[in-house]
Amino acid sequence: MLSPSRTVEELKALRELTGDANGAQRVAFTEKWLAARAFLKDKLDALGIPYEMDPAGNLWATLKGKSDTTLVIGGHLDSVPNGGWLDGCLNVLAGLEVLRDIQSRGTPDITLKLVDWADEEGARFGRSLYGSSAFSGYFDVETMRKLKDRDGVPLEDALQNVGITLSDAPKAKEGQQNIAAYLELHIEQGPVLEGMGLPLGAVLGTVGVERHTITFKGQAAHSGSTPMNVRKDAFLAAGKMSQEIYEIAARHNGVCTIGSCTTKPGIVTSVVEECTITLDQRHLDAEHLAAMWQEAQDAARRFAEEGNVEVEFGYLWNIEPILFHPDLIDACAQAIQETAGVVHRLPSGPLHDAAEVARAGIPTVMLFVQSLRGISHNKIEDTLEEHIEMSVTALGKLTDQVIGWVLNHAEGRGPSDQCDAGRPASTTSGQDRAESL
Amino acid sequence: MLSPSRTVEELKALRELTGDANGAQRVAFTEKWLAARAFLKDKLDALGIPYEMDPAGNLWATLKGKSDTTLVIGGHLDSVPNGGWLDGCLNVLAGLEVLRDIQSRGTPDITLKLVDWADEEGARFGRSLYGSSAFSGYFDVETMRKLKDRDGVPLEDALQNVGITLSDAPKAKEGQQNIAAYLELHIEQGPVLEGMGLPLGAVLGTVGVERHTITFKGQAAHSGSTPMNVRKDAFLAAGKMSQEIYEIAARHNGVCTIGSCTTKPGIVTSVVEECTITLDQRHLDAEHLAAMWQEAQDAARRFAEEGNVEVEFGYLWNIEPILFHPDLIDACAQAIQETAGVVHRLPSGPLHDAAEVARAGIPTVMLFVQSLRGISHNKIEDTLEEHIEMSVTALGKLTDQVIGWVLNHAEGRGPSDQCDAGRPASTTSGQDRAESL
Repeated sequence: MLSPSRTVEELKALRELTGDANGAQRVAFTEKWLAARAFLKDKLDALGIPYEMDPAGNLWATLKGKSDTTLVIGGHLDSVPNGGWLDGCLNVLAGLEVLRDIQSRGTPDITLKLVDWADEEGARFGRSLYGSSAFSGYFDVETMRKLKDRDGVPLEDALQNVGITLSDAPKAKEGQQNIAAYLELHIEQGPVLEGMGLPLGAVLGTVGVERHTITFKGQAAHSGSTPMNVRKDAFLAAGKMSQEIYEIAARHNGVCTIGSCTTKPGIVTSVVEECTITLDQRHLDAEHLAAMWQEAQDAARRFAEEGNVEVEFGYLWNIEPILFHPDLIDACAQAIQETAGVVHRLPSGPLHDAAEVARAGIPTVMLFVQSLRGISHNKIEDTLEEHIEMSVTALGKLTDQVIGWVLNHAEGRGPSDQCDAGRPASTTSGQDRAESL
Repeated sequence: MLSPSRTVEELKALRELTGDANGAQRVAFTEKWLAARAFLKDKLDALGIPYEMDPAGNLWATLKGKSDTTLVIGGHLDSVPNGGWLDGCLNVLAGLEVLRDIQSRGTPDITLKLVDWADEEGARFGRSLYGSSAFSGYFDVETMRKLKDRDGVPLEDALQNVGITLSDAPKAKEGQQNIAAYLELHIEQGPVLEGMGLPLGAVLGTVGVERHTITFKGQAAHSGSTPMNVRKDAFLAAGKMSQEIYEIAARHNGVCTIGSCTTKPGIVTSVVEECTITLDQRHLDAEHLAAMWQEAQDAARRFAEEGNVEVEFGYLWNIEPILFHPDLIDACAQAIQETAGVVHRLPSGPLHDAAEVARAGIPTVMLFVQSLRGISHNKIEDTLEEHIEMSVTALGKLTDQVIGWVLNHAEGRGPSDQCDAGRPASTTSGQDRAESL
C-alpha cells in the first residue's frame, strides 16, 4: 500500500539531516549531498532494491520487472545553497514510495527505475542539469572542463572528489536503452496552482525561452544645461520597454521579464548615455515565442527612433519549447482527476531534468504540486502536507497508468522507435541551454 | 584699447603650457595649476598690477581706483582632468584684458579687482566652489578636513603643499569688504545659445536644484513561473517615471533628469525586486521647482500603487535658485546688444562661483558665450574664436556700464547695504550645496 504520509516523514528526516537554520544545503558534490544520497541508499537497501551510479554521477535504482522495458521516475536530491525542503527531493522520495508500493504487489510487468539526477541546480558551477544533459547527450566535456566555482575549484576536481570522472559523463547516454517513458513530480515553483486553489497540475512541457540584452545608446549631457527637447536619453527608451513587455505578454499569453537595468555614466548630473536591459521571454508555443521577440525588437527600435537614440540587441541564450507526450499528459490529468477531483494543465516556466529526458526522445510527463506563495530556492519554500500527500498518491496512479500505456504502446521497441513528440527541433546546443533556469 | 584677439592668443598659450593630448590638466593645487597661476602672475607683473593670495587660496589682482569701492571680475584657472581649454580660464583672461584696457585709460573712478577662485571644479576632492564658498561664508572647515582624494591624500595636505592652510579659509570672507558688484564671463556649457544661433547670453541666475533618489520595492519572482498579473515589478514603476519627468519638465519649463537606474537582484531570470532611480530637477523659480518635485513624488506614488509596489524617497541634495541682480542683468543685456546686435536671457543650469558671490549679497551677473555642441569638461570643449572675441568685447562694455552703476548706486555703501536681490533664502548649508554641480 502506498503511504504518502511516509514520504512527508522522510522529507522531514532528510531536512533534519541535510539542512540548517538557513535552509537546505544539499549542494551537488558536497558532503551534505553525499549524506542525502546515503539516506536514499539506506532506504533502497532496506527494500533490497539495487542501485548504481552511472558515468555522470546519476544514481539509478532498479526494480526488475518481467521485461527489460523500463519506466523511469526521476528527481534530484541536490539543492541550491539555503534552499527549500521540497525542490527536487520530493520527486525522489515520492518515487521511492511508488517503487515500494509496486514492489509490494509482486514482480511488475515492466522494469521500474528511480533516478536521482546529479546537479540539477548548477548552483556551484553555474551550469544546470549536469547529469540529465549527459544522459540526453546535450553535453560537451570541454566546455564543462572550463567551469570553476567562486573559489576557483574546477568542476572536474569537485567531481573527482566524489568519485565521478568528467570525461566519462557522455557514457551516461547509454542508459537511455530500454527506457520507454519518464515521469517526474515537482513543486510548481510558481503561483499559478495556488492562485487557482488547486493542489495538482499536469504539465504540458517546458516553455521556450528567448533571452537577450537591449542596449540603447544616446548621449551624455549635463542635467542642468541641456534642454529636454535636445536630449538623447537612453533611459527614456528603456523605460518605455518596461510597459511594452506587459502588452506583448498579454497579446500572446506568455511571460516577459526585464530583470536588470544598468545605466552609463550612471551619475545624478548626467543624461543617461547608455542603458542596457535584459529581456527574458517564455512561451510554450514556438511561433508565439518568436513573435514576442520580434515585437520586442520592433518596439525597441520604435522607442529608439522616438528618442533619437540607437539600439543594439545582444544574444544571451535561447531554447525552443519542449513539449511532453500527449498520451502521458492525458494520463497525468486522469491521475490528478482521480486524486483531487479537479485538474489544470499548465506549462512549466522553469526547466527541469524532464526536459532533457524529453528532448532525448523519451515520452515524458511532469506532475506539479502547488507551491505556497510560489516561492522556491529559499528556506521558506513550502507546500501543504495535505498537498504533498496528494501528489504522492497521484504519482502512484500515474505510474500504474503509464505502465499500462507502455505495455500497450512501447513494449519491445527500442528508444529510436519511441514516439518523438518529445523531441523538438532545438536550435540551441546542449552546452548553452542550461546556463540558468 | 581692448584687444580680444590677445585673449584668444593667451588662451592658446595657456593650453600649450598646461594641457596635453587629453585636454587641460589644471587640476587645483597641482603643479599644472601653479603653472597656470604663474602664467597669470607674469601678465600682471608686466602690467604692474599687484596681486595677493587670500586665506582660501584665491588670487586677487587689484587695479587701484579713485575710491576703495570695488568691482570684481572673476573666474577660475583650475580645470577638471582632461578638461577643456575655456572653462574657467576664459573668464580670468578676459578679465585680465578688461583690466588692461581700463588701466590704459588712466586711474579708474573705482577700484577694479580680478579674482582667480581656487578649486571651482572640485574635481579632485569632490567638493566644488572651494575658494568662492570660503569667500561667501558658506564653508565648514571640519567637513572639509574629512575630504580625501582617490589616493587617500587629505585636502588639507594638498593645500599645505601649495602654501594654503585649510583652517584659515574662513578668513577669506573679509575680502567682501568694499565689493559693490561682481561680473563673470563663462562658456555656456550647454546647447541653448548654439541652438538659437546666438553668440552671447545674459544670465538670470543659477537654477535651484532638487536631487533625490526614488526606490520602488516589489518582490523578486521567477521569470518563467510567475504570471504577469501577479508580479510586483519594481522596474515597471521606475520605467514609467522615465516618460513622466518629460511631462513634468514641459509643464513648468524646467529640466528633470533620471541619471541612474539600479536593479536588484538584477538578474535575467527574476522580476526586479528593488529599483532605484536618481532624479535631478532644476528651475530658476523656487515655486515651480517645488511643484516639479511634488509632481514627481505624486507620480511615483501613483505608479507604485498601479503596480502594487512600495515607494520610498531619499534626499540627496537641494539648493534654492540664486537670482542675479536685475540692474546688472539689464546692463549685461545691453552690453550684449551693443556687441552682437541680439540678446537672449537664460538661466544657468550648472552652478558657478558667481552663485556664491551673489548669495553673499553682492550684486552679481554672468555673461555666457556659446559652447559648440554644448560640451564641456572634455578636451573637445570649444567655442568659435569669433565668439570668444565678442565675449571679451561684451565683458569690457559690461564692466564700463557697471562702473557707472556702482558710482550711481553703491558708492560709499558697505556690503551690508547692498541690494540683496542676490541673497536668496537658501535652506541648504554651504557645506552641502556644492557637492556636485
